[in-house]
Amino acid sequence: MDISYRLADIAAQLGGRVLGDAEVRISQIATLEKAQPNHISFLTNSKYRTQLAGTRAGAVILGEADAGATDLPRIISDNPYAYFARVSALLNPLPEAKPGVHPSATVGAGAQIDPTASIAAMAVIGAGAAIGAHSIIGEGCCIGANSVIGRHARLYPNVVVYHNCMIGDNLIAHSGAVIGSDGFGIAMDEGRWIKIPQIGRVVIGNDVEIGANTTIDRGALDDTVIEDGVKLDNQIQVAHNVRIGAHTAIAGCAGIAGSAVIGRYCLIGGGARILGHLQLADHVEIAAHTLIGKSIREAGSYAAIYPFGKTEDWRKNAVHLRHLDDLAKRVKALEQEIALLKGKD
Amino acid sequence: MDISYRLADIAAQLGGRVLGDAEVRISQIATLEKAQPNHISFLTNSKYRTQLAGTRAGAVILGEADAGATDLPRIISDNPYAYFARVSALLNPLPEAKPGVHPSATVGAGAQIDPTASIAAMAVIGAGAAIGAHSIIGEGCCIGANSVIGRHARLYPNVVVYHNCMIGDNLIAHSGAVIGSDGFGIAMDEGRWIKIPQIGRVVIGNDVEIGANTTIDRGALDDTVIEDGVKLDNQIQVAHNVRIGAHTAIAGCAGIAGSAVIGRYCLIGGGARILGHLQLADHVEIAAHTLIGKSIREAGSYAAIYPFGKTEDWRKNAVHLRHLDDLAKRVKALEQEIALLKGKD
Amino acid sequence: MDISYRLADIAAQLGGRVLGDAEVRISQIATLEKAQPNHISFLTNSKYRTQLAGTRAGAVILGEADAGATDLPRIISDNPYAYFARVSALLNPLPEAKPGVHPSATVGAGAQIDPTASIAAMAVIGAGAAIGAHSIIGEGCCIGANSVIGRHARLYPNVVVYHNCMIGDNLIAHSGAVIGSDGFGIAMDEGRWIKIPQIGRVVIGNDVEIGANTTIDRGALDDTVIEDGVKLDNQIQVAHNVRIGAHTAIAGCAGIAGSAVIGRYCLIGGGARILGHLQLADHVEIAAHTLIGKSIREAGSYAAIYPFGKTEDWRKNAVHLRHLDDLAKRVKALEQEIALLKGKD
Repeated sequence: MDISYRLADIAAQLGGRVLGDAEVRISQIATLEKAQPNHISFLTNSKYRTQLAGTRAGAVILGEADAGATDLPRIISDNPYAYFARVSALLNPLPEAKPGVHPSATVGAGAQIDPTASIAAMAVIGAGAAIGAHSIIGEGCCIGANSVIGRHARLYPNVVVYHNCMIGDNLIAHSGAVIGSDGFGIAMDEGRWIKIPQIGRVVIGNDVEIGANTTIDRGALDDTVIEDGVKLDNQIQVAHNVRIGAHTAIAGCAGIAGSAVIGRYCLIGGGARILGHLQLADHVEIAAHTLIGKSIREAGSYAAIYPFGKTEDWRKNAVHLRHLDDLAKRVKALEQEIALLKGKD
Repeated sequence: MDISYRLADIAAQLGGRVLGDAEVRISQIATLEKAQPNHISFLTNSKYRTQLAGTRAGAVILGEADAGATDLPRIISDNPYAYFARVSALLNPLPEAKPGVHPSATVGAGAQIDPTASIAAMAVIGAGAAIGAHSIIGEGCCIGANSVIGRHARLYPNVVVYHNCMIGDNLIAHSGAVIGSDGFGIAMDEGRWIKIPQIGRVVIGNDVEIGANTTIDRGALDDTVIEDGVKLDNQIQVAHNVRIGAHTAIAGCAGIAGSAVIGRYCLIGGGARILGHLQLADHVEIAAHTLIGKSIREAGSYAAIYPFGKTEDWRKNAVHLRHLDDLAKRVKALEQEIALLKGKD
Repeated sequence: MDISYRLADIAAQLGGRVLGDAEVRISQIATLEKAQPNHISFLTNSKYRTQLAGTRAGAVILGEADAGATDLPRIISDNPYAYFARVSALLNPLPEAKPGVHPSATVGAGAQIDPTASIAAMAVIGAGAAIGAHSIIGEGCCIGANSVIGRHARLYPNVVVYHNCMIGDNLIAHSGAVIGSDGFGIAMDEGRWIKIPQIGRVVIGNDVEIGANTTIDRGALDDTVIEDGVKLDNQIQVAHNVRIGAHTAIAGCAGIAGSAVIGRYCLIGGGARILGHLQLADHVEIAAHTLIGKSIREAGSYAAIYPFGKTEDWRKNAVHLRHLDDLAKRVKALEQEIALLKGKD
């Protein structure tokens, strides 16, 4: 590809204020450190201002506060990080896929595939499924019977969507993601587990991204719901009947247990665990590797991380965790003794 | 589907005692909250008895203790949760798969596929493999050479079973599950890792369910063994030479390290970690997100979860974990001081 | 297979010193407990010396310190564990794959496939990709456009490599592994997440093994780099722009957040989490289930594991974690009181 834009063209398309030579031609985006003269770079935090000095970038994206921090040609934006994302998308358009069904793919009876959609090699579209306009179903993907995928979806190879799922527009699903697998529903009866059929669906809104090898189970009776704009990283487990509120972002390896309800605009750290049937308010932030064991009704930042240390130090300290209650009682007893002694004086 | 049953028909098939109008016709199962007049619902815990009042369900499943809690047509069962599971299965039979091998599938030399089995599109059956009666091998699944899968298995799309594995009857394996991958066996030699060939198998009993993207490694020398009735949720990692006892259930994202031996009827919480070479007795219950670092010889419930809090509170408290040993010593010193002071009085 | 070797043959190929009957014929390797007379076994730790007594093995591999611990035919090696690995590889050669492209596979325009390579059924090789000599691309694998895979690779079924990735020689990748998926890059703009295009690559050195369902994201701008000899177990998440130093080994379910730089010869335990942008020195060892929240500059062993207990004991003790700061202050106050009281005496 030989895409390039003048700085003036970029600002014309994406907004922002150009300072310096608006004719400089840009063909790629790069970090301040690695940028070349045909690259645009960006500064999203004033504390890295000194890095501007050494860059070879042809232009930079800056916030208002840093507008005067360099003489380089520059675009000033209220939100330089978002601006960077938009410039990168402009310079790196996704490859187009050829519309139509690859001869090696199979399509079930009654499936409706928009003529602008692309079904890649080895993909399987189930009976009665529907694939919307401009959607790309990657190699080896399998779309279950009667599932509906909206417009402009991009499923990378080997994604599986089970039957009867409903997915909105602009889905991005990475390889190995599984949508609609059975929830973990079992009932003990006379020494054996009986399977509880999982007859709910997965319902996904618009503008959702699902990471590689992330799994989203279908509901037991009602649906599992992922609202608009939710962003899921890799290897996340979303159990049956979970609801994830709009624009919540969840980092890799997190696990959300059954029937948990996560609010809107939450940020959940990598490897965090949310137990079943809990509710998290909107705008809740959970630290990485933290287990949430009861509902959180108030926006804010929550954590529970055991601080690491050298193994010998950790071991010496950790042993007392088994005796904290005893230690607390001993402190209480000491306080009483002291009070007594002081009383005697 | 237009399946429906009279309440009397259900009880005739599944047992239980009908109270009220046995002629009411039921076509689906639903929660008390969402049920419609053609639905049956259920109450599995007396503490939710008040929810019975508002339900629009045509009938309900109740335990003996709640038999009189409503006038709705009802089935009384000793185990209403298991009864619910059975009714749901009755009302929601799994779709049948057409027997035979899809033209796009490939079958290796000497593979034995029962004529009642179904091999879906893009599936690959390795040389010498055997697929039992009524088993369904989903789209894009790959069954390795000489592996044996029993009767009535249901493998959802893109499951991989490596070579030489032995699987019993009634397996359910969800998409992305991997059975028989190499265990993590490496030996350091002069600054480089040498791979230790993993020549054991995975041996799986009857009535096992394996969740989406769960991985079960083959043994290094001996086999990895999953006994009858084990239920594994999504994204679980089972390392080489693990043995999981019959009827144990493990929640999502748990990890069982090499050569661990888990007892029968254990319940292991989501994200829990069992270290290698440990043994867990029968009927051991492990809390979510808990690391088990030594063997557990006694049935019971075990946990280790750091309680979460607001990040600023957590931080203020957590800092002391690095000095617990010092704190304990200071308390001990105080006790000695007090004893001395008291002695002086 | 009917492979067998005389003990003398093994030592001729692999080195080591034979004691006892060098003519004994060996066809397989097994544990001391399970070995039969045609098997060779091994002792890697002198503390298990007593197990030698009961073995039925035809021969054993021993370290120098144990050379006299048995009369069995034996090979003495400086590193009996590595020797065991080599003997096992000798006795268990991997099955060869037939060179060429399976008729059901598809190959994109301009892809270069070495004539000695093997492309299995349902595999898809993207346009412009290159597959090196003697490499095996398993069933249902998908190699993205312009990606390069070196010589002697072995990709098990359903591995996905995205576009533009560079992989060295001798890669082993297990089923469900995903290499090159988008990193989790999003920018918030007026209440919506904007995707940051991930235009870096994944670059993997020689002699790397990647476990089942492990995911390695491509870089945002620069590359994600896995150096030579790195060994990754199953279900590991490697985020964008991570660098993992040569010969580091990481156990299952670990997660490495974005831009973290892991040193050489590190050992990272199962389920451990390394936060983003951190640096770990060479030869750092991280315990299982430990979160690392700041950089580690010094080689050594680090841990943070909450010790488990019976749930009722754990609960009784854990409650004090929310009040540790208070407890520490109370101890300090007591110390001051005591000092005062002692002063008074």
